[in-house]
Order: sequence, then C-alpha cells, then structure tokens
Amino acid sequence: MADYQLYYWPSIQGRGEFVRLTLEEAGADYVDVARMPEEEGGGAGAVMSMLRDHQGGTAPFAPPVLQHGSLRLAQTATICRYLAERHHLVPRDQPGRLHCDQLALTLADLVNEAHDVHHPVGVGFYYEDQKEEARRRAAFFRDQRIGKFFSYFERVVDENPASGGWLVGSERTYVDLSLFQVITGIEYAFPTSFARTAPDHPGLIALRDRVAALPRIAAYLRSERRIPFNANGIFRHYQELDA
Amino acid sequence: MADYQLYYWPSIQGRGEFVRLTLEEAGADYVDVARMPEEEGGGAGAVMSMLRDHQGGTAPFAPPVLQHGSLRLAQTATICRYLAERHHLVPRDQPGRLHCDQLALTLADLVNEAHDVHHPVGVGFYYEDQKEEARRRAAFFRDQRIGKFFSYFERVVDENPASGGWLVGSERTYVDLSLFQVITGIEYAFPTSFARTAPDHPGLIALRDRVAALPRIAAYLRSERRIPFNANGIFRHYQELDA
Repeated sequence: MADYQLYYWPSIQGRGEFVRLTLEEAGADYVDVARMPEEEGGGAGAVMSMLRDHQGGTAPFAPPVLQHGSLRLAQTATICRYLAERHHLVPRDQPGRLHCDQLALTLADLVNEAHDVHHPVGVGFYYEDQKEEARRRAAFFRDQRIGKFFSYFERVVDENPASGGWLVGSERTYVDLSLFQVITGIEYAFPTSFARTAPDHPGLIALRDRVAALPRIAAYLRSERRIPFNANGIFRHYQELDA
Repeated sequence: MADYQLYYWPSIQGRGEFVRLTLEEAGADYVDVARMPEEEGGGAGAVMSMLRDHQGGTAPFAPPVLQHGSLRLAQTATICRYLAERHHLVPRDQPGRLHCDQLALTLADLVNEAHDVHHPVGVGFYYEDQKEEARRRAAFFRDQRIGKFFSYFERVVDENPASGGWLVGSERTYVDLSLFQVITGIEYAFPTSFARTAPDHPGLIALRDRVAALPRIAAYLRSERRIPFNANGIFRHYQELDA
C-alpha cells in the first residue's frame, strides 16, 4: 500500500492539483485514488464514499483529502504544508515557513477569485445561467485583479534576499509549485489578458519555467498523471470572458 | 511597547476580528494600531502606510497584519495559528493541530461566501451596483450553504471524542473563537434564516454561548475594543437579502 492516498475528482486539476504537484516534487509514494479504475475502487465514487465515511473522526467538508496512515487531512493549504514540512519543501527557519504559509493563502485567494469569475452567483447555478454576471466580473478580474496579484508576487520574488528567483529562501518550496499552477492556469483561461501582462512580470515567467524544468515536475507534466486543463476546472477558458 | 501590533481597518470587525478574538483570549499584550488616534499614529492611514512599507521584506498583500518583533505576518489563518501555538489555544498533539487548521480554513471558505453574497460581481463595484446579482446569490447562500456548513460544524462538535462541546479536543481552541464569530455574524446578517436553522444546530448554539462566556471574551465583548457589526464589514444585514 502506498504511503499516501489522495482523494480528489478524477477528471479535473482543480484544487487537488496543488496537492498533486507537491506529492510529485516530493517524490512521494502516493495513489491518486479516484483515478484508478472503478473496479479497483477508483472513480468519483471513491471521493463520494470517503466524504461519507466518519470512521476515525468527522468526514471532511470537501476534497481534496489526503490519507496518511490514520491521519486524514482536508483543505488544500493544510495538506500542502503538511507534505512540504515532511519532504523538505519549506525553509528550515520558522519565519521562512510562516512566509510560505501566508503566500499559499494569498494564492488561494487568487484561485477563489479566478473560480468566481465563471461562477459569480455561486456554484448552485450553471455557467450558462450566470453568463452576464460572469462577463462583468471577468472584466474586473482581468483589468484589476490579475495585475495586482501578479505585481505582488513579482515583488516577493524580486525582494527575496536569497535572489535565486524563488519566492522564499534559496530553494524551491511548495509555494513555488502552487504559483506555477496559478500562472499556467491564468494563462490557459485568459490567454489574451495574460499575453498583455506577462512582459511586466519577468520574474514570474522565469519562476514558472524554472518549476516546469524541475526534473520531477517535468516528468509529471509529460505523464498521463497530469490531467489537462479543461472546461470543468477552476481555470476555464471562455472566449467571451477573455479581453 | 506592546508585544504585538495588529494592523487592521479601525471601523469594521472584518477579517481582523478573528485575530482580535485570538489575542483577547490569549490575554496577549497588543495594540490595535489603527484604532489609536491619528495624532498617535493610528487611523486607517497606519494600515495604508504599513502596506507600503517594504522594510524587512515584502509588504503584505492585504490586512490583517500582525507585527511581532521583527516578524511581520499576514493572512488571517496564518496569524491566528501562530498566536494560538504561542498561547496554548491549540491542542498539544499534531493531529489535533492539523484538525484545527483545516477547520479554520473551512471557516474561511464560509466567510468568503458570506462576503460574496453582497459582492457577487466583485469588490470593484458598490453593493448598489450589484443588488440583483446579490439577491440571487443570497437565496442560494441562505437555502443551501448556511445549512450545509452549519451541519458540518455541528457534526464536528458532536463527534469530538472529548465531548466537551468544543470543536477539537477537550479545551477551547482558536477555531472555537472563529466559529463564534461566524455564527454571530451570520445571525446578524441573516436573522430570519438564522432563526429558522438554529434549532437544528444545538451544539453550535451552545458553543457560541460557551465562547461568549469565557471571562476574557466576555470582558472584550463588553468593552469598547469590540467594534459592533455594521454595514461595511463582511457580515452585512440587508433586509432584502434575508429570507
């Protein structure tokens, strides 16, 4: 049995992708449970069952969920931090770790905003039933939010005293992996807006490329374990929402 | 000089209130900087200056921000966890601490949803310019989300093996304080919906009352340090958004 079992929807990157990237860069022994065939206990049903299973404590509110022995963890940032501390994907010093954590949560805020562009009225309605609201929110997100967040993270890289092109300290951390995911997700969803803003953020583009070139991440991105971006995830490309 | 300096908007509870409650229950020596008179360095301007101040590293993306000696921390959940670990507001064991962290982030998700009810199209527009969208989102939030989140937290209290009425372990943790804030905030913003759902969640009501009765919290709630709920915070009461 693998060390870790990840429970997340099998057909999207979604929030689970932040965990997958952390597990991959850690070189961890894990199973992406729902991506196994249904006859082997996989499929979306495996996620649903886990969310109903109260054994050993309250079932989590939502996936992604990581099972590690008897420990069952939910919430993307909590899971990533836990893995990162075990697998040397955080700095050794406490201020560095805390800095990573706050950046991870700032990225989570951006991820929420990117999601809400196509679901401003809530996840209870289809995109088709909130297209007009989405158009208004998309304009605001494109024109004001992407640039504001990107400029912030660009500054963090730029002002990192270790000056190695990473967010915190002199080595890659789990937050660099998460930032890679956010940058590529926004590029996928808003290609026109992204092309316009990218030249202002050379540090982020370099960081994205540096993460993609990490041997384990590069192997993962080439593998079938990496689910392509698609129209059901957090980052969705709708032509009418890109400028 | 006080041990901690909190930087947050002086006229609202907002996300800063989760930090204030943690500092108060910790009995910590702190200053709520922006609530001091402007001539003593307070006011909203103190928050703005801090957000421009890169000294000692990148300025944070947004408040609340906690300064503790040379350490400057942002993101509500990161700050609360840091304080809770220093002031015995988390369990001693790692699984208990991780459980607290994931509950804190689940509460943060609920807080985001409660905020987006009155700002579905984004913070770039006034409420008055998104009233129709807000009405749609409010119905979904009232009818489906409050009950779903409350049932989840009710189960967590109910299934806590220590069975003392707290979320995790046998003593109050920072997450209990945060849950208190969320329950009272939703009661303020959606009194009709709240009155309808409250009888289904006796464990949460009892927890809310138990937190309010903690001597330090009770003293805080009676003091002028506690800013009343109002129409500029996260939890806003608009008659038309309550059922």
